[in-house]
Amino acid sequence: VHPTLAGKKGPEVEPIEVDRVVALRPDAVFLATPNELSASLARPLVDAGIAVVDLSGAFRLKDRDAYPRWYGFHHPHPELLRKAVYGLTEWCPKLRDAGLVANPGCYPTSVLLALRPLERRLLAGAPVICDSKSGVSGAGKRSDLAFSFCELAGNFKAYGVGVHRHEPEMRAELGFPADAPFVFVPHLLPVVRGILSTIHVTFTRPLEAPELLELYETAYGGSPFVHVLPPPELPDLASVVGTPRAEIGFALLQGGRQGVIVSAIDNLLKGAASQAIQNFNRVFGLEETEGLEWN
Amino acid sequence: VHPTLAGKKGPEVEPIEVDRVVALRPDAVFLATPNELSASLARPLVDAGIAVVDLSGAFRLKDRDAYPRWYGFHHPHPELLRKAVYGLTEWCPKLRDAGLVANPGCYPTSVLLALRPLERRLLAGAPVICDSKSGVSGAGKRSDLAFSFCELAGNFKAYGVGVHRHEPEMRAELGFPADAPFVFVPHLLPVVRGILSTIHVTFTRPLEAPELLELYETAYGGSPFVHVLPPPELPDLASVVGTPRAEIGFALLQGGRQGVIVSAIDNLLKGAASQAIQNFNRVFGLEETEGLEWN
Amino acid sequence: VHPTLAGKKGPEVEPIEVDRVVALRPDAVFLATPNELSASLARPLVDAGIAVVDLSGAFRLKDRDAYPRWYGFHHPHPELLRKAVYGLTEWCPKLRDAGLVANPGCYPTSVLLALRPLERRLLAGAPVICDSKSGVSGAGKRSDLAFSFCELAGNFKAYGVGVHRHEPEMRAELGFPADAPFVFVPHLLPVVRGILSTIHVTFTRPLEAPELLELYETAYGGSPFVHVLPPPELPDLASVVGTPRAEIGFALLQGGRQGVIVSAIDNLLKGAASQAIQNFNRVFGLEETEGLEWN
Amino acid sequence: VHPTLAGKKGPEVEPIEVDRVVALRPDAVFLATPNELSASLARPLVDAGIAVVDLSGAFRLKDRDAYPRWYGFHHPHPELLRKAVYGLTEWCPKLRDAGLVANPGCYPTSVLLALRPLERRLLAGAPVICDSKSGVSGAGKRSDLAFSFCELAGNFKAYGVGVHRHEPEMRAELGFPADAPFVFVPHLLPVVRGILSTIHVTFTRPLEAPELLELYETAYGGSPFVHVLPPPELPDLASVVGTPRAEIGFALLQGGRQGVIVSAIDNLLKGAASQAIQNFNRVFGLEETEGLEWN
Repeated sequence: VHPTLAGKKGPEVEPIEVDRVVALRPDAVFLATPNELSASLARPLVDAGIAVVDLSGAFRLKDRDAYPRWYGFHHPHPELLRKAVYGLTEWCPKLRDAGLVANPGCYPTSVLLALRPLERRLLAGAPVICDSKSGVSGAGKRSDLAFSFCELAGNFKAYGVGVHRHEPEMRAELGFPADAPFVFVPHLLPVVRGILSTIHVTFTRPLEAPELLELYETAYGGSPFVHVLPPPELPDLASVVGTPRAEIGFALLQGGRQGVIVSAIDNLLKGAASQAIQNFNRVFGLEETEGLEWN
Repeated sequence: VHPTLAGKKGPEVEPIEVDRVVALRPDAVFLATPNELSASLARPLVDAGIAVVDLSGAFRLKDRDAYPRWYGFHHPHPELLRKAVYGLTEWCPKLRDAGLVANPGCYPTSVLLALRPLERRLLAGAPVICDSKSGVSGAGKRSDLAFSFCELAGNFKAYGVGVHRHEPEMRAELGFPADAPFVFVPHLLPVVRGILSTIHVTFTRPLEAPELLELYETAYGGSPFVHVLPPPELPDLASVVGTPRAEIGFALLQGGRQGVIVSAIDNLLKGAASQAIQNFNRVFGLEETEGLEWN
Repeated sequence: VHPTLAGKKGPEVEPIEVDRVVALRPDAVFLATPNELSASLARPLVDAGIAVVDLSGAFRLKDRDAYPRWYGFHHPHPELLRKAVYGLTEWCPKLRDAGLVANPGCYPTSVLLALRPLERRLLAGAPVICDSKSGVSGAGKRSDLAFSFCELAGNFKAYGVGVHRHEPEMRAELGFPADAPFVFVPHLLPVVRGILSTIHVTFTRPLEAPELLELYETAYGGSPFVHVLPPPELPDLASVVGTPRAEIGFALLQGGRQGVIVSAIDNLLKGAASQAIQNFNRVFGLEETEGLEWN
Repeated sequence: VHPTLAGKKGPEVEPIEVDRVVALRPDAVFLATPNELSASLARPLVDAGIAVVDLSGAFRLKDRDAYPRWYGFHHPHPELLRKAVYGLTEWCPKLRDAGLVANPGCYPTSVLLALRPLERRLLAGAPVICDSKSGVSGAGKRSDLAFSFCELAGNFKAYGVGVHRHEPEMRAELGFPADAPFVFVPHLLPVVRGILSTIHVTFTRPLEAPELLELYETAYGGSPFVHVLPPPELPDLASVVGTPRAEIGFALLQGGRQGVIVSAIDNLLKGAASQAIQNFNRVFGLEETEGLEWN
């Protein structure tokens, strides 16, 4: 499937039943399976004491009632929703020895990394606007006319406004109630990889650039995979695609009352695979950079 | 320069002095020259009673003092700034027999067409967020590393936040004072043509979709080149690139208090050349569609 | 399907039975239907004296026995194969009043326009190599993983070597027997539109550039839609995409014994739709440029 | 310059004089400098007994008289041309302890890997056609309108036919005299990275696929970075971009008398940087895969 990852002979890949995985007694299992399948597979693995890092949406929401609406199925193991820790690595204090990690969605990763350091500075009631743009790989490998080359090359559009399943995930993690003016508009970029979110916020009082920079530096100074850019630098996709890191920059407008935060990640790495490895490392007390070391 | 526009022999193109243009006594002249050059060239043409449609920024701002800051030169003919009419065709009642038309900028065209119908519905003091994305041709033909294929293919970024010269143009046309929370963030898409603006607004009171649709239909029902899409349809670039038209769609959020308006144009046509022809047609009392007739 | 071609209301498109088409007694019908469907539909139309321009492969080969192998079906109306004229407009003397025109394939159009003027100059037995590269629209609108954006962006490959159905079409039109060393290698470019063929030939004797240029000029001097470029100019896709014309250029190597001929067309226009209109014009004795007039 | 290669702080990069390099007594130096600069810099390094791997064209040709014509300068150290070994790793038996390695050009790497195993099978006097297609990064980082996004997106063209400096390099390495019908036509693909060469050859006698496959397997069975694909598989760019490997596949036509060999590499890796590391490893008796180990 991914020939560039293969060596001369390619790896041996074979189908496997969950019972056999349990019998093998691995320390951990990464699930990169469809939402509903992950929801089922995790139970026997967790029961066997195997640490599970799940890359689907099966354990990202705490509210079992949200699953039918946003994911289209009744959760078969709602009791696991409380047990699962939400693995936004830099903001998850409970990863050590966690039995079940819900790896965040790609959009939420890009948005939450930008917003979490600001939470006490956001003017209550003012809209928080997340205008996000994603590469096409976010949709997975699909035989679908809507994702064909001829439809997307040279094109650009917004989609899923108000109905994207990453929105309740972000609201829940940010503690925003359903009636808070939190706006998430995803767009489809004609690129393969990467997410760039442009986030518009209103502050409780005018901020100056050094103050805001310090907020971000305090949050991420010790994080190997979140790079904060001093203004007027702003991230672009080319600086993060192919890497496990997020880049965050910002601009202040209206005398410092309005903020524009720009956050960029590789949706397949920090938005999925490399964050899963960060989480694995943290579960087992390893260095967060283990296996991701070039950075 | 543009071989696809040429026939077998190509057109004869020759340098020409403004004096000779004046001597030829044309009805009208289109200026597609750099800002400072347009500012100079228009004077003798206007004096000779030749209608001028200027595609540069030389006459878009009414305030002479804005030119040094936003355009980097002192306007040589500030007396023409009042005379010039701002040619957002669908919203310009004074085009008939106008002597000097300032053709709008590409970003302002996409934003103003979306916002003008809403003016009385916008909650005072609430931010109006224009998150705009443009193809690379918006930067013109440039031998510049920043616009090279390798820098831009697969890339995406925001730029010019708070310092783009189209921002004062939009503020002035919308009647927003300098301290109004009007936010404009342009982005560079890896496509050649097209602008898509995602505009986030707060309404004075909750609106329902039919009500908002009617506002737009009332504004544009008679306009051949502005197509309003009923929700949940939203425009994409592919539907407008290569055409003289704008497409506008919207979504309502937060029970109708927040609006997401999406507006798409071809930056080189409705954002420049075809709007110039619309304006020319209106100046001379011709059908607005003359010369643009396929639509 | 193609919103940029639609006006504000869009055209009325409705399904129609061939009987009803016959009853309407049109002068001509364009068939842009799948190969096997065209093969059936043409019969009643031709019987009714309606001129048919067929854009499929249903009538491009004269040999009924070739259809099962190359097209996967037995031709239902092999008697029409002789009647059909092969509409490579510039080389088809029998278009006037033709009852059935087989519009050429896109690859053959690009190759034959380059090779037909050279026929008596090609060294017998020396390989004729057609290394052709096509945009993705050549494959049609398809919900197929192989044509998805993520598979094709940044990618390039050869395909169908020795098994592409356009090869027998070219061989037949060039009069090359099955054992002649005629090599056709199609490639898939990561662009939407356009075909560029690089054709490598050996001449019977060394040629000089003016001599070869004159051969092409003689062939195409009167053709509005074939532009011959003097060396060292070579065509590129950008010069032909969106236009009804072919561009042909060449370079001479090895002291004039080897030729590299480069031919470029828009696969959807000269390779399909606009050539169909050229053919229609010629069938009815109209100007070849009618309906294609900007050029 | 390449932010994705940098860590959180970025590496310290500083200008350095060649004298200081010599004084530091490194084992080896990689020169990735312009042709003329490499030609000068190598002398003092070689004199100091430092192994040099040069990625420019300064030492690729053995004939000093070729430099003015193909590279535009008189070689300042022609005595080094004989000393330099041409580092097409898989075909260079003299790398151990070499003092100066000329790293091959990107096009020659893709072509020579495909042709070297065939040399005794090529029909003398029959044309060898190398129809090569390269991504834009092959031109380096350039502020040049010809390499701007708007000129290249959606475009494709041949260039430099008969005048590309990689042609004499290939002829010399293949032992083809100046009048041999060796044709090299480079093209510019609208992708950032990768070269795919389609090579057309005539064999001395008809070959069958297993025979040709064995020729390639014999040549490359022990090479970690050349993958031979069994027919009908052919390489594409996506399988090699981002990797240090070449992929080679083929098709036989005309009863096995004509061969189409397709060769793909990443022009920046096997065509430059990773081949330099292979060569370095071989100079010092290290495993060829050292530092390139994922494969």
